[in-house]
Amino acid sequence: MKTSGYAAKSATTPLAPFAFERREPRPNDVVIDIRYSGVCHTDLHMARNDWGWTRYPLVPGHEIVGRVRAVGSAVTKLEVGDDVAVGTIVDSCGDCDQCKKHQEVYCRQGPTLTYNGQDRLTGEQTHGGYAKHVVVREEFVLRLPKDLDASRAAPLLCAGITTYSPLKTWGASKGTRVAIVGLGGLGHLGVKLAAALGSDVTVITRNADKGKEALAWGAKHVLVSTDAKAMQAAASSFDLIIDTIPVEHDVIPYVALLDVDATLVIVGAITMQPKIDALALALGRRRISGSGTGGIAETQELLDFCAEKNVLPEVEMIRMEGIQHGFERMERGDVRFRFVIDMEKYAG
Amino acid sequence: MKTSGYAAKSATTPLAPFAFERREPRPNDVVIDIRYSGVCHTDLHMARNDWGWTRYPLVPGHEIVGRVRAVGSAVTKLEVGDDVAVGTIVDSCGDCDQCKKHQEVYCRQGPTLTYNGQDRLTGEQTHGGYAKHVVVREEFVLRLPKDLDASRAAPLLCAGITTYSPLKTWGASKGTRVAIVGLGGLGHLGVKLAAALGSDVTVITRNADKGKEALAWGAKHVLVSTDAKAMQAAASSFDLIIDTIPVEHDVIPYVALLDVDATLVIVGAITMQPKIDALALALGRRRISGSGTGGIAETQELLDFCAEKNVLPEVEMIRMEGIQHGFERMERGDVRFRFVIDMEKYAG
Repeated sequence: MKTSGYAAKSATTPLAPFAFERREPRPNDVVIDIRYSGVCHTDLHMARNDWGWTRYPLVPGHEIVGRVRAVGSAVTKLEVGDDVAVGTIVDSCGDCDQCKKHQEVYCRQGPTLTYNGQDRLTGEQTHGGYAKHVVVREEFVLRLPKDLDASRAAPLLCAGITTYSPLKTWGASKGTRVAIVGLGGLGHLGVKLAAALGSDVTVITRNADKGKEALAWGAKHVLVSTDAKAMQAAASSFDLIIDTIPVEHDVIPYVALLDVDATLVIVGAITMQPKIDALALALGRRRISGSGTGGIAETQELLDFCAEKNVLPEVEMIRMEGIQHGFERMERGDVRFRFVIDMEKYAG
Repeated sequence: MKTSGYAAKSATTPLAPFAFERREPRPNDVVIDIRYSGVCHTDLHMARNDWGWTRYPLVPGHEIVGRVRAVGSAVTKLEVGDDVAVGTIVDSCGDCDQCKKHQEVYCRQGPTLTYNGQDRLTGEQTHGGYAKHVVVREEFVLRLPKDLDASRAAPLLCAGITTYSPLKTWGASKGTRVAIVGLGGLGHLGVKLAAALGSDVTVITRNADKGKEALAWGAKHVLVSTDAKAMQAAASSFDLIIDTIPVEHDVIPYVALLDVDATLVIVGAITMQPKIDALALALGRRRISGSGTGGIAETQELLDFCAEKNVLPEVEMIRMEGIQHGFERMERGDVRFRFVIDMEKYAG
């Protein structure tokens, strides 16, 4: 089927209008009218080919909120008109141990990415949510709970699940001493989610003013990372630290903040190769890890949790036509705290 | 009380005979005639002040096997003539959460190290097992099981517990796919212990011949780390990797061998600062950690386990007078697989 959106045609040219074909819906496919599309840092990295694996043209976007327009003949759980969402993956092998454990993001064959991926049947390149429509296999379409504001929900599909999944994996719950490093798209959602889980949340940031803002989202404490004394005083005081800083940085100062048996999870700058201090690990049996986004069941759990707890990202709505300006602002860190493209306003 | 042993007097002079005073036994102290003393890589590092915190004179040795010679008036669990052992720590605060969890090695105030530590009451420097006698608080004295060959048991007190503790912490049991990297004092015990726990053990080594030897200790597979094809084929295939390499090295190739949610524990070169690959962590939610030795209860559990399963280190007996030669051989990696000083043959 025909659709239209914005694509990067090369690493150096601005995103521009792009008319293209989505696959004709298969029996188990859902056709979605995209209403809102979140703008993730990954979109920017991929558009510029920062990681070297971009294929052009590239239609970014893996934080998709929309409404079902049509369903294939074998679709059983969704109907036309349903409010739905799509995240970072749109298919997986379904057969491996990870898929069977509902951890499709760790599928042994690799999950099919929402954009810049390859369709498992035809090998065609997948295209993301910077478009009017998307066609997705039913099992990878999430239900958007009625109580969740659709216009603000999109960032949950990547930024949200990327912080929620490690919070759940490492047992953040009532009283867990959680620190969130960095206060961007991921970090601000990490704060809200950890607080909603009942954890004792500290924000670690270079920017004390930004930190104060997090107090309204449920953070109890602000730790300014450039304050050597405060960092020293916070040594060994956290059970779990989620590091959302999106650029290369030194992780050693954060490891020192981990208590015995506690874990630092790097979810922001996952392409960096930081140095670690093996002695600091040994002295407290501290752990360092990373985390992908999350499986489909866990992402649905997140959406339901956010509806129940009224957790929503801070978003700024932009127009599809303004995406290049959005990218530029994002590069400067000038975004509070996530851009969402209002696709209903895009004529296509 | 007077005793004698061997001490380093400076970073650059060979170990030499040293007559010194042990503290007069307190009511809760046990006086031990040392029979066997293991030679740990740490002893060599400390004698040479490799880590910058050595105070001289230094009497190394924290793998001690002996017999009770006298007990203080408040000692209730040990008697004269009992076969006992002492490991890397001889005291801790006893009050903190870690001590209460029997993780004295992670004591909030820092445990008292067996040598180069400071007595908690007097501040005097502690001296280790390269000596005829040692005086240790009862709670930090372990029972040597009757079925354990005393002459070979000493290396269990550091090399043994350093590998046993992470194996237990990360749940090595029947069928767990455990890899042991490096086949020195720690590594060879790691193989034996993991095999005794029922795990499916792979040895990772540069030396295929040494690797074959490990098959007799219960390893099922040998992976030669310089064989790029074999390393590639082993990607994502282990639940737990214990890295015992004692010198600085690249850990990234080993991280790639971790399965989803699996852990690499660095226990050898704990003073290094290796680079890690955050993407490799994220793609499989892999973890990197370190580990100290172990608490007193866990060390006792290890000794009992080794007696039950007949696990013993491969040792080469040396004389106290030959320690300098032993250090030199150890530096060349010429030791199969741990030196033990026969203190009964040392006149003192």
